[in-house]
Amino acid sequence: MDKAQQDAMKKEAGIAAAQLVKDGMVAGLGTGSTVKFLVDELGRRVKEEGLEFTGVTTSRRTQEQAEGYGIKIVDIDDVDRIDLTIDGADEVDANFNGIKGGGAALLWEKIVAVNSDKIVWIVDSSKVVDVIGKFPLPVEVIPFGWSHVFKRFEERGYKPVLRLEADGEPVRTDERNYVIDLHLERIDNPQELAEDLINTVGVVEHGLFLNMVNEVIVGDPEGPRVLVNPNK
Amino acid sequence: MDKAQQDAMKKEAGIAAAQLVKDGMVAGLGTGSTVKFLVDELGRRVKEEGLEFTGVTTSRRTQEQAEGYGIKIVDIDDVDRIDLTIDGADEVDANFNGIKGGGAALLWEKIVAVNSDKIVWIVDSSKVVDVIGKFPLPVEVIPFGWSHVFKRFEERGYKPVLRLEADGEPVRTDERNYVIDLHLERIDNPQELAEDLINTVGVVEHGLFLNMVNEVIVGDPEGPRVLVNPNK
Repeated sequence: MDKAQQDAMKKEAGIAAAQLVKDGMVAGLGTGSTVKFLVDELGRRVKEEGLEFTGVTTSRRTQEQAEGYGIKIVDIDDVDRIDLTIDGADEVDANFNGIKGGGAALLWEKIVAVNSDKIVWIVDSSKVVDVIGKFPLPVEVIPFGWSHVFKRFEERGYKPVLRLEADGEPVRTDERNYVIDLHLERIDNPQELAEDLINTVGVVEHGLFLNMVNEVIVGDPEGPRVLVNPNK
Repeated sequence: MDKAQQDAMKKEAGIAAAQLVKDGMVAGLGTGSTVKFLVDELGRRVKEEGLEFTGVTTSRRTQEQAEGYGIKIVDIDDVDRIDLTIDGADEVDANFNGIKGGGAALLWEKIVAVNSDKIVWIVDSSKVVDVIGKFPLPVEVIPFGWSHVFKRFEERGYKPVLRLEADGEPVRTDERNYVIDLHLERIDNPQELAEDLINTVGVVEHGLFLNMVNEVIVGDPEGPRVLVNPNK
């Protein structure tokens, strides 16, 4: 699949998901290249259809894009609850376990997700996999002592790589933390891995989103498919 | 016990612990009023006895105090391992389970602790308790979405209070996070509570330090006592 085809599928999924946002909703808006198409379409609906909703964003990037369209964005701490959150994902398997955080926004994404009544992911078909882990798993860590967390990951065989900017400096998340990507290739027991990671002192959050999503909208050449999680 | 007596016991414990630091060691230096006496004594030993060691600090406060005495302080990521860490504690029970973080430095304290070969706590005798929890348990949380974490703690009966500065603004840790203190009065199952807290999205770390300490030096009117953890 080439980049243009992939973008077409992302756009298709984004446009389909935008229909789920209704007047009066508080909607969580994720981060990433697929969400960008979603926000474009929401911007169009606000302008052309008079759609009125309130957004909560999971990154400064999305906030700026949405506000550029005149979408009302509020702080997550100014709402009681989020009705629906639409976000991308880097991988998702048949058990609705996913990896997120390729864009380094996983912490805010997870905070928004756990405070949402419904979660929808939008992906192109290349993101739907048998076993997650081919996509490097992002782990957000405190800069203070990060190298010791890194060594621990090495000892456990997690194949860690500190994510760097083009200038060689560590990438900083919106919370000014570092990101260590684990090149695991396949994650056979995501629950066990999640427990190990969250119990490692210095780890703030990780990119495993296990059985959290309600629906996945997959952009396909034949049109969008919707996968519904039977366990939610 | 009045403040002067308590300070005398803290000072006594701090001076006793300073003897554990040997030439050539990498020593972790904690945070708090008892550690202040420790660092004073280490400063004296450096000046008068020519003690040479390298310190790793758990807060900017301690770093400034130590550097004022000419103690060489390095970054935790510049050492392979810490030989010995000496820190205070807000409470400790007979199973060597403790509460730390009254000084809002619990995250860096815990990161230093897990990278130390030996951990010694220095306390006045009022800190040794039958059941921990009378001292409010500090939990460090991400500001983004903090109010939802707070609500969750309320629902679970944890009696949370957001820690504020005198001007009414939330206290910020060295990592710029907030601190929520849980007024539990007694914590009968600290392991279970620790698991619940660390698995709450938005929680960075909590002040339960369970069976981590090797020795506790207790300042007493009759002179310092040493409690040795048989399970370490």
